[in-house]
Amino acid sequence: VAPRSTEQRKADTLRLLAETDDCWVSTASSDGTPYLVPLSFVWDGETLTIATAANSRTVANARAGGMRVGLGGTRDVVMIDGELAITPIADDRSRADAFVAATGWDPRDEEGAWVLLVLRPSRIQVWREADELAGRTIMRAGSWVA
Amino acid sequence: VAPRSTEQRKADTLRLLAETDDCWVSTASSDGTPYLVPLSFVWDGETLTIATAANSRTVANARAGGMRVGLGGTRDVVMIDGELAITPIADDRSRADAFVAATGWDPRDEEGAWVLLVLRPSRIQVWREADELAGRTIMRAGSWVA
Repeated sequence: VAPRSTEQRKADTLRLLAETDDCWVSTASSDGTPYLVPLSFVWDGETLTIATAANSRTVANARAGGMRVGLGGTRDVVMIDGELAITPIADDRSRADAFVAATGWDPRDEEGAWVLLVLRPSRIQVWREADELAGRTIMRAGSWVA
Repeated sequence: VAPRSTEQRKADTLRLLAETDDCWVSTASSDGTPYLVPLSFVWDGETLTIATAANSRTVANARAGGMRVGLGGTRDVVMIDGELAITPIADDRSRADAFVAATGWDPRDEEGAWVLLVLRPSRIQVWREADELAGRTIMRAGSWVA
């Protein structure tokens, strides 16, 4: 198969964001120690929302250095960097409800403090095999590449 | 289904390591900026070997802060931390040949300098759903949990 066009990659990415429940979230501590976990998310057309424990290592790391998200398979990759906002789950009921609707899991029913990690993509890179490394950046500085 | 036993998780993990071609490699720059890419690997029973470009961001980050590897799916997770050695590909012909045999790709045929990232797991955590978070550590300090 030929490498996909930019347009096709964007369509595939939007479908993957809508249909996928989990992503790999990479963060790092301030001394440069990498951390990686899979977490559930929901996509609302503009942002990914992830709910996680307020005292988790992911949150501590993300506050300091942001996060990078991977989804799809290792041969159908979507890599996302973006602007991150971290909000107590009680402060954004509409996102929290959307998260519950998508994942079937409501952290508000559980013990402890929970936050929403809201990532607005600024760069999205998308590729399958090596022949798609060229043209892999389909969003740059928050704008879809034409 | 009931949560898997430690023994079953070890067996599943060894099979996944043997059968899987790619993993998610998370690293971080010394200022704590996370980085994440999927890379091909081969498992020899004791170590994962990954070949990548000597001048890549992954290698620069890994030299300073090590790496964390995720494989399997986000609902069939294997997370690996370990001791990392970085070797020019020409210095370890047997690992390089094993990598080529497993992946069908020989970096030595390409331009540029290449290295092998050799990760010897010291901790392995394995889980599917939330009910498997307890007991997820199946290797600790380099030893399989009994």
